[in-house]
Amino acid sequence: MVAKQHKFLLEESELPTRWYNIVPDLPSAPPPPLHPGTLQPVGPDDLAPLFPMELIAQEVTGDSYVDIPDEVLDVYRLWRPSPLYRAHRLEEALGTPARIYYKYEGVSPAGSHKPNTAVPQAYYNARSGVRTLTTETGAGQWGTALAFACAQYGLECKVWQVGASYDGKPYRRSVMETFGASVVRSPSELTETGRKMLAEDPEHPGSLGIAISEAVEVAAQDDATHYALGSVLNHVLLHQTVIGEEALLQLAKAGDVPDLIVGCTGGGSNFAGLAFPFLREKLAGRMDPLIRAVEPASCPSLTRGAYAYDYGDTAGFTPLLKMHTLGHDFVPDPIHAGGLRYHGMSPLISHVYELGLMEAMAVAQTECFDAAVTFARSEGIVPAPEPTHALAACIREALACKASGEEKVILTALCGHGHFDMAAYDAYLGGRLVDEAVSDERFADPLTRLPQVGG
Amino acid sequence: MVAKQHKFLLEESELPTRWYNIVPDLPSAPPPPLHPGTLQPVGPDDLAPLFPMELIAQEVTGDSYVDIPDEVLDVYRLWRPSPLYRAHRLEEALGTPARIYYKYEGVSPAGSHKPNTAVPQAYYNARSGVRTLTTETGAGQWGTALAFACAQYGLECKVWQVGASYDGKPYRRSVMETFGASVVRSPSELTETGRKMLAEDPEHPGSLGIAISEAVEVAAQDDATHYALGSVLNHVLLHQTVIGEEALLQLAKAGDVPDLIVGCTGGGSNFAGLAFPFLREKLAGRMDPLIRAVEPASCPSLTRGAYAYDYGDTAGFTPLLKMHTLGHDFVPDPIHAGGLRYHGMSPLISHVYELGLMEAMAVAQTECFDAAVTFARSEGIVPAPEPTHALAACIREALACKASGEEKVILTALCGHGHFDMAAYDAYLGGRLVDEAVSDERFADPLTRLPQVGG
Repeated sequence: MVAKQHKFLLEESELPTRWYNIVPDLPSAPPPPLHPGTLQPVGPDDLAPLFPMELIAQEVTGDSYVDIPDEVLDVYRLWRPSPLYRAHRLEEALGTPARIYYKYEGVSPAGSHKPNTAVPQAYYNARSGVRTLTTETGAGQWGTALAFACAQYGLECKVWQVGASYDGKPYRRSVMETFGASVVRSPSELTETGRKMLAEDPEHPGSLGIAISEAVEVAAQDDATHYALGSVLNHVLLHQTVIGEEALLQLAKAGDVPDLIVGCTGGGSNFAGLAFPFLREKLAGRMDPLIRAVEPASCPSLTRGAYAYDYGDTAGFTPLLKMHTLGHDFVPDPIHAGGLRYHGMSPLISHVYELGLMEAMAVAQTECFDAAVTFARSEGIVPAPEPTHALAACIREALACKASGEEKVILTALCGHGHFDMAAYDAYLGGRLVDEAVSDERFADPLTRLPQVGG
Repeated sequence: MVAKQHKFLLEESELPTRWYNIVPDLPSAPPPPLHPGTLQPVGPDDLAPLFPMELIAQEVTGDSYVDIPDEVLDVYRLWRPSPLYRAHRLEEALGTPARIYYKYEGVSPAGSHKPNTAVPQAYYNARSGVRTLTTETGAGQWGTALAFACAQYGLECKVWQVGASYDGKPYRRSVMETFGASVVRSPSELTETGRKMLAEDPEHPGSLGIAISEAVEVAAQDDATHYALGSVLNHVLLHQTVIGEEALLQLAKAGDVPDLIVGCTGGGSNFAGLAFPFLREKLAGRMDPLIRAVEPASCPSLTRGAYAYDYGDTAGFTPLLKMHTLGHDFVPDPIHAGGLRYHGMSPLISHVYELGLMEAMAVAQTECFDAAVTFARSEGIVPAPEPTHALAACIREALACKASGEEKVILTALCGHGHFDMAAYDAYLGGRLVDEAVSDERFADPLTRLPQVGG
């Protein structure tokens, strides 16, 4: 028997030392965010109450690369470079001639890709004199990542956890507290927004929109307190490009060139982190992979949303972002992939999609969990519900290759493990998981519900 | 800033291809297991109803090394070699001049060291024509490992999960089911043992002893069904030596030689897996580390037990094992480190301890969780409750080095992550964790409660 290599590892000395910014390599720049009052492009001063200047500069930089600070690299090295796996045993289970690779981010302290941006965000905030970071968390991945990151630089971390999640996922709270964060049920008595909601309903289950509003409200009141966001924004996508830069090196070590790159999209940061460095290579003519985003059927912002200016949050506090959106008041079905339940899509990914540089598809959740169980039994990793969307798309493609005999090279992002999401597997294995509602009425023209922006 | 290397990785080509058997290197052989009826040493035929001949041969082999089959190596490569970490950030948090390394087994499919033996046990059983493996699980680590292993070789896997654990840890059951096992609450209607217990109490909370009896009862009735055990026995310890063999290579790459090796002990397989290859080096005069076992104060078989022949299970179905024991009817306090709540200690480790080749200490659980939180915040990994005992001992030693100025090299086994044990962290962080009862009465002379064995 010839030994099959499963893992393609990098030494710590091969960890990327720069983040990659795709904007200057695109044929045109993405439309700017607009101030919701003036409808003019937002400037650094508009963002300064929430973010440190170094992150604001990264948000708008025209440079192709941004150096990663040594103090960030030192923390990245706790788990990075992350492994690239060849899914030999999955391929055998499917009987496909396709070669499937997955880049696994579940080795991080939070069990997902989120610390890739939480760590630099905490670092730049600490360096600018901030003492406390606030944020919201729904599924819990982002709150866990920021809790860990704040512990590295001596920052206090306050997390507003959506009430229903706080009540139903007490162990996610325990992880955040283990990393030193204080976790508050949202809506809370600590903010005007929260008090208003609690006055309406003392047992209000909360929502991500409300939790964002609470975290932003507290951050805006105090110069030593800032806010941190885990997806959507340019600087977040920038930080995640370490994923793709490593995968480029690892796939070269494996001696393969990708025909297809597949990632799941919610806000888009995991997808962009893997895909953008490969898109750079594609734009430069050095390879020609198809790049495919996979979104949940319940929340298909790319495949069924409008491309228009909309708010990033439900309450309408944020700048207006030009993006694919189902409308900021859209409430997705309560699927188990909580990290993908976002009404919009990162403006940068939306722009890349409009440029025709990538494609998108939507998958319903039972197909995702079918894929997850097949994957777990062959590869030994129980995936988070979010990347099961990408796995389902990989398996579709691998079975198409089985039918056609094509030996395609497929690369996907396994952005996290599902150890804190076993309730979803329990529902699936117990036959209680149902697919989302995907009627046309469900996604009726969001343009009628969008803010009016001229031009 | 000089980059500090955190991870010492091995290529898959550096994975050990042999397991190490310490027995021929010891000054004397351990006393044999005795048949409970005849009080004569058990022979292969006595064990054949439960185990395949290749495992029985490994149980009694006098060879120093046993080749690892290619089909086992191919599954090991899904996660092995596992990483060795230098705990730079923990050292900084403690302000110690000690150099702390930890070998991390939480990267495995089950999140612990257990698959190292579950995989070969499933392989040898499948090769001998067995179709089904039965086992018990308390905390859930072993059941998860065997469920995964059985999926690799097409075996059916039936797990009796202790009732209290089945009711209180539904997500552990979900993981086992995701890997394809069928999980039964113990006591069950499926066995005579179980029916008898349920007749006494229809809501019987079960115990590990009852679950073992049920799994053994079912395995003994059918030639195509065998039983698998996750610790204590020689062949289990043998399989775990891949941990120490890898760590030897990795520590050499780091340029260090250990002064102290620390591991937690329940049945002893994780401890032996790390320590025995280093003990080989010590016996050969190539290094001279202190080797230290750390057990819970609630279940101190090495430090407060008798060294005598006793049953391996509560019901008294197993051969008599010469081991350190608190008595087979001893019921430990319900501490959170469920994997360490075993009344006895592996006979091979007990023998090594009697030979004076290692030392032992006991630690209470609040000190363990203090250590766990310090570790999680600095190193980014939330440990399982079991290895927190070793971490507590490491931190004691590191602080002693801080006081003395010694630059000791400490190596420990971080045998698993705590993602399915967050209830324990929740209790600790909420101030509800209490230390165990450790009065002398608690561990009154077990000799009076042991089976009578002459000689």
